[in-house]
Amino acid sequence: MIERKNIEEPIVTEFKRFNDDFAAALNSSTRRVQAAIDQILISTGKHIRPLMVLLAAKACGKVNDHTINSAVLLELLHTATLIHDDVIDETKQRRGTPSLNAIFDNRVSVLVGDYVLSTALIRSIQTGNLQIIAIVSALGRDLAEGEIKQLETVEEIILDEETYFQVIRKKTALLLSGCAEIGALSVDANPEDIAICREAGEYMGYSFQIKDDIFDYYKELNIGKPTGNDIREGKITLPLLYALRHGDPTEAAACKKIIFSQDLTTENIDRLISFAIQSGGIDYAEKRMQEYRDKAVELIMKLPDSDARQGLLNLADYIIQRNK
Amino acid sequence: MIERKNIEEPIVTEFKRFNDDFAAALNSSTRRVQAAIDQILISTGKHIRPLMVLLAAKACGKVNDHTINSAVLLELLHTATLIHDDVIDETKQRRGTPSLNAIFDNRVSVLVGDYVLSTALIRSIQTGNLQIIAIVSALGRDLAEGEIKQLETVEEIILDEETYFQVIRKKTALLLSGCAEIGALSVDANPEDIAICREAGEYMGYSFQIKDDIFDYYKELNIGKPTGNDIREGKITLPLLYALRHGDPTEAAACKKIIFSQDLTTENIDRLISFAIQSGGIDYAEKRMQEYRDKAVELIMKLPDSDARQGLLNLADYIIQRNK
Repeated sequence: MIERKNIEEPIVTEFKRFNDDFAAALNSSTRRVQAAIDQILISTGKHIRPLMVLLAAKACGKVNDHTINSAVLLELLHTATLIHDDVIDETKQRRGTPSLNAIFDNRVSVLVGDYVLSTALIRSIQTGNLQIIAIVSALGRDLAEGEIKQLETVEEIILDEETYFQVIRKKTALLLSGCAEIGALSVDANPEDIAICREAGEYMGYSFQIKDDIFDYYKELNIGKPTGNDIREGKITLPLLYALRHGDPTEAAACKKIIFSQDLTTENIDRLISFAIQSGGIDYAEKRMQEYRDKAVELIMKLPDSDARQGLLNLADYIIQRNK
Repeated sequence: MIERKNIEEPIVTEFKRFNDDFAAALNSSTRRVQAAIDQILISTGKHIRPLMVLLAAKACGKVNDHTINSAVLLELLHTATLIHDDVIDETKQRRGTPSLNAIFDNRVSVLVGDYVLSTALIRSIQTGNLQIIAIVSALGRDLAEGEIKQLETVEEIILDEETYFQVIRKKTALLLSGCAEIGALSVDANPEDIAICREAGEYMGYSFQIKDDIFDYYKELNIGKPTGNDIREGKITLPLLYALRHGDPTEAAACKKIIFSQDLTTENIDRLISFAIQSGGIDYAEKRMQEYRDKAVELIMKLPDSDARQGLLNLADYIIQRNK
C-alpha cells in the first residue's frame, strides 16, 4: 500500500518550497479576496498536481525556481477551476468544508476565480518559457471546454463511454499531463523525456478521474463528499455507463427511465448505484483505471532510474489506491 | 460633433480585418459555447477597445498581423468580463438585449467566460511578444480586482472619490491603456511613443467610465439600460459622490440615510438622482471627464502627425460626446 510519504520523500525540500510559495502567492491587496482565499486554503486538497510537477522535474533533471513557480501556478489554475465549479455545481459542500460559494456568493466566487486564474497566468509568464506559457493557457481553455462538455452531456443525457472519456480528458487528464510536461520542461529535459512525462501524466489523469468517479458509488468511505452526488447532478460515470450497456436489460431499461425522467429521489439513486455495482460496473471501471496506471508505469520506467522516478511510480499507485 | 466615421476612417481596412477575425475567433467546438457566443455577438458593443488598438498602432507604425490579433484578443478579454459581469450583477438586460445569463444560466456564463478569457490569452501568446503577453495577463487580474473592489465598495458603502477612482482605474482605465500600449508595441514603436499611448489610453479610460456613469443619471437618453441602475445596485458614482460632499448638508444627510439603509425604492432613487444633478454633481463629473480628455489629447499631440493620430484625437472626443 502506497502512502503519501512514499510520494513526498524524494522531494521533501522541494515540496516545502512549494508549500511556502503557494501560501505566499495568494496574498492579495483586497480583504475580500484574502478572506475567500483563506477559505480555499482550509479546504485545500491533496496537492497531487504540484507533486506531479516536482517529481517529473526531478526525475528529468534538477528542480529550480521555474519548477517551483510552475508547481504553484498549476495548483492555482486547479484552485481557480474549483472555485468556478462551486458556482457551476451549486454545490454547498466541497470535501466536507462549506464551499466558498455557500459562505460568500456567486459574485465573489466568479471574481476570485478569475483573480486566481489570472495570477496563475501571470506566474507562467515569469518562467519566461513560451512553451510553458502556451501549455498553461491551453489548459485554461481545455478545463473550461471539459466542464462545458460535461454540462451538455448532463443536459442531453448522453450515455456513451466515448463522451465520458472526452470529458475526463479535458477536465482532468490534460491538467495532470500538463503538470508532468511542464515539470520536465522547467528543467530543460530532452524531448523524449518531455514526451514520456506528458503521456504518462495524461494516463495518470484518466486513472485519477476514474478513481474519483468510483468513490461516488460507495457509502462508507470517508471521501468528504456525499455519495451519489454525481448521479444526483445527472453525471453518469463509468461504472453506471457500463451497467446500462452490459447489465440485465430489464433493469437497465428501468434505470434509463429513471435517468431520462430525472426522477432522482434518494431511493432511485440507490437503485442506480446498486445496479452499477451488481452489473460489474465498478470492476470494469477499476480494470480501465488499472490499464491507464499500467500504461503510465510502462512509460515512466523509460526515464533514468532515480528516487524521483520511484516517486512517480508511487504516485501512479497512490492515485488508484487512495481512499479519499 | 465627432461621429463614428471620424474614428474609423483612418483604419477602414484594418477595422474590417478585425471584424472578420473577431467573428472567426469564437468558432467553438461545442454547440453550447457557440450558442452562447452568438448571443454575445448580437449584443456586441461599440468596439472602442479594438479601435484604440488599431489607431494607436497606426499612429506609431504600420498595422500588422500581431496588431489585428491583439485587437481581437483585447475585445475577447473585454467580452469575457462582460459575460462574468452578467453573473455578478445578476443583470437581466445588457444594452437592451437579454443577457446571456437570462437566457442560459450562471453555469454556462461562468464557463463560457472562462473559455473566452482563455482564448484571449492563447491569442496573446501567438503574438510571440512577452511584453504583450505580460500586459494581457496583468489586465486579466486588474479587471477582476477592480470588480472585487467595486463589490467591497458597495457592501461597505464607501463614499469617497479616491476609492471611486481606484475602482474605475482597474475596471476600465487600465484596459484602454493596455489597448493603446499593445497597439504601439505590436508595431515596434519607440519607447517614448509606447509610453504616450499607455498614458493617453489610461486618461481616455477614465473619461470613458465617467461618461458611462453620467448616463445613469439621465432618463431620456437611449443608452439601452435602465436609468438609476447603478444606484439601485448600490454603486454610488462620481456625480452623487460630489453632491453628498458639496451639496446642501440637510439633503445630503437625508440622501446618505437612504443609501446606508439601502432603502432604494424608485422614489428614493429619483431623489438621489435629483440631488446629484441639482448640486452640480453632473457638472463636476463632466469637468473631471474633460480634464482627462485634455490630458489625453495633450499627449497624443506629441505623436507624429497622421490621419491615425487624428483618429485617436477624434476617439478622445467621441468618448466624451457619445450619447450611448
